[in-house]
Amino acid sequence: MPTNRLEAFSDGVLAIIITIMVLELKVPAGHDLSDLVHTTGVGLLTYLLTFIYVGIYWNNHHHMFHLVRQVSGGLLWANLALLFCLSLFPLTTAWVDDSRFEPIPVVVYGLNLLSAAIAYWVLQTVIIRQQGPKSLLREAVGADIKGKVSPALYLTGILSALLIDRSGPIGVGLAEACYVAVAIMWVVPDRRIDRVVREHKPAG
Amino acid sequence: MPTNRLEAFSDGVLAIIITIMVLELKVPAGHDLSDLVHTTGVGLLTYLLTFIYVGIYWNNHHHMFHLVRQVSGGLLWANLALLFCLSLFPLTTAWVDDSRFEPIPVVVYGLNLLSAAIAYWVLQTVIIRQQGPKSLLREAVGADIKGKVSPALYLTGILSALLIDRSGPIGVGLAEACYVAVAIMWVVPDRRIDRVVREHKPAG
Amino acid sequence: MPTNRLEAFSDGVLAIIITIMVLELKVPAGHDLSDLVHTTGVGLLTYLLTFIYVGIYWNNHHHMFHLVRQVSGGLLWANLALLFCLSLFPLTTAWVDDSRFEPIPVVVYGLNLLSAAIAYWVLQTVIIRQQGPKSLLREAVGADIKGKVSPALYLTGILSALLIDRSGPIGVGLAEACYVAVAIMWVVPDRRIDRVVREHKPAG
Amino acid sequence: MPTNRLEAFSDGVLAIIITIMVLELKVPAGHDLSDLVHTTGVGLLTYLLTFIYVGIYWNNHHHMFHLVRQVSGGLLWANLALLFCLSLFPLTTAWVDDSRFEPIPVVVYGLNLLSAAIAYWVLQTVIIRQQGPKSLLREAVGADIKGKVSPALYLTGILSALLIDRSGPIGVGLAEACYVAVAIMWVVPDRRIDRVVREHKPAG
Repeated sequence: MPTNRLEAFSDGVLAIIITIMVLELKVPAGHDLSDLVHTTGVGLLTYLLTFIYVGIYWNNHHHMFHLVRQVSGGLLWANLALLFCLSLFPLTTAWVDDSRFEPIPVVVYGLNLLSAAIAYWVLQTVIIRQQGPKSLLREAVGADIKGKVSPALYLTGILSALLIDRSGPIGVGLAEACYVAVAIMWVVPDRRIDRVVREHKPAG
Repeated sequence: MPTNRLEAFSDGVLAIIITIMVLELKVPAGHDLSDLVHTTGVGLLTYLLTFIYVGIYWNNHHHMFHLVRQVSGGLLWANLALLFCLSLFPLTTAWVDDSRFEPIPVVVYGLNLLSAAIAYWVLQTVIIRQQGPKSLLREAVGADIKGKVSPALYLTGILSALLIDRSGPIGVGLAEACYVAVAIMWVVPDRRIDRVVREHKPAG
Repeated sequence: MPTNRLEAFSDGVLAIIITIMVLELKVPAGHDLSDLVHTTGVGLLTYLLTFIYVGIYWNNHHHMFHLVRQVSGGLLWANLALLFCLSLFPLTTAWVDDSRFEPIPVVVYGLNLLSAAIAYWVLQTVIIRQQGPKSLLREAVGADIKGKVSPALYLTGILSALLIDRSGPIGVGLAEACYVAVAIMWVVPDRRIDRVVREHKPAG
Repeated sequence: MPTNRLEAFSDGVLAIIITIMVLELKVPAGHDLSDLVHTTGVGLLTYLLTFIYVGIYWNNHHHMFHLVRQVSGGLLWANLALLFCLSLFPLTTAWVDDSRFEPIPVVVYGLNLLSAAIAYWVLQTVIIRQQGPKSLLREAVGADIKGKVSPALYLTGILSALLIDRSGPIGVGLAEACYVAVAIMWVVPDRRIDRVVREHKPAG
């Protein structure tokens, strides 16, 4: 089975996830700049962070599937599991925003990020197993340092929000800093795959 | 007429159906874990079940159309009938969730699942007729045991919710067990089609 | 310019239009069959009619673009004008449903159907002009009897709802009958284009 | 990396943006023409303007990517930045409409249009840099007069709404006139790219 329909379906789901969050941004009740800042000021930043996360997943998905030729049943379900985790982003983002950065919503947002990272790692592992010992993706991923640092950072963030200064802004601020740090780390697309793609030139 | 636009359109509709259900999940009113469990605890499980159902239909649709080369008018409408049934999933899912598993919503959810199964069977039959006596899809489907067991299980579920213990949890629990059983049965994609595709190697 | 991206974009818009109407269907407040019928009984039928209309436009769009090879600026905007008219379907459908078939919403629904028919005719004319005197589409369309009968039926429906029995059900019933009649007339895809496609075998 | 998935993803996002605005249009509360005009009369015009803007961006995006063969990491993010700006259109459009053309919402709508224009310019510049000294896109864009006049018109509109007659209709009217003028200027797709595409005949 070729990968084109799986990619098209994933693109569709990711396009919808990245766009429907706008429906969560409420139209300001008043007509002044202060109303805009009050209603969507914080929300816009949270929306931007989630937008960047979905963009990162789309970029990495896009890159990874350049090294995939065959779709198996396991791969289809690993991909759907990733899409399921990502489809909860608008909900957890809206909860963080609605609660104005209360600890528990920030923790749940972190757990959602963590679940998506695990689902991505499972998908990557399924593909590597399917490709066998000469897996191009294994070669491209290498030691996968980013893939190991990210869950550690998410966990740090989650624990910070849970344990440090629960009635003040320090724990939550640390958590958000961890989440933003992972995003920054991944904004640069995976050059390792670019290199392997160039060297092995698979048909696009 | 080639099948690529029909597949793209179906992918689009399925991607939207699978994603818009998130809009039905309400943001918890409070900021604690108990609020999350209270607001979306049950909903999340129902959402997950419907997500898996749409994933199953997408997988099977994807597999089936590997054996289709030509699109006729009848096939277009049989496909739209399937999409129509699937497009009602978010509504019936939300009703089950809102009612906290009352019998009638569970019955209507089962009828919706049943209608989609029938529409899928009609689509399959239209394709087999169109392909004539040497139909690859007929060969791939074979005795179609899963396709015959599913409606029986749906009907069992519907009748359980209607007839058994209407004021208690037994009938509804049986119905949900039936629906989950069908999902588990189908999570493995249709290997019969994989085999026929491999043997006959149609162009992707 | 080839037509593939225009078709993909149109497919995306049509897939969204056909699916978001489900969001307009409200989850019944109670948990009984009577609640379902009361809340969505009428709505479901109106939803079905609009679903069929969008399906018809998708089918015809799909068929028509099999005869188009080049995309010009005028064609892009004629196509967007058609998509704009179709994107209002969920709104006018919801109004008809909310008002329980009051005359004015039924008239506005008819005007929406009429505007889409006119936009489709303009798109068809733009393509025929672009293709010049040997236009395959002109050959396929022929006398375009369906294309001439449809606006007449829409106008009959609109005038019925406006003029006949405004406080009773006869005018509105006639109007709905006209709209349903057009849908039935078009449910069969355009065999004329099938024939021309077969004869001239353009690359899909 | 080829451009097909980037185009498909962008088409998906743009298709959703252009369609979800319909969800913002409220179903009229009453059943008369005056209710329709009162509820959606103004909204429909604003919706139409934003629809045309998204259509323009889609057209230009579509044209521009005919001259792009390779996707780099920078290009992916420049494209996502453009999609982010465009994804805010439904929100700012709804605010203008809700406020019945109050100055601040009109200014924010103008800033949104301006940000999209800047993001488009950045995307164009990233592509030209990537293509190097023999860039076909640079040749096609030429002096880019439209690209320079548009931000000037947006700024004029923004300043008009801010400074002139803040309690009366003149400043806001001027601003809207500026926004409409830019749309009219861009409705004609970019013939310069058509010409370069024809001359260099890249594979579609």
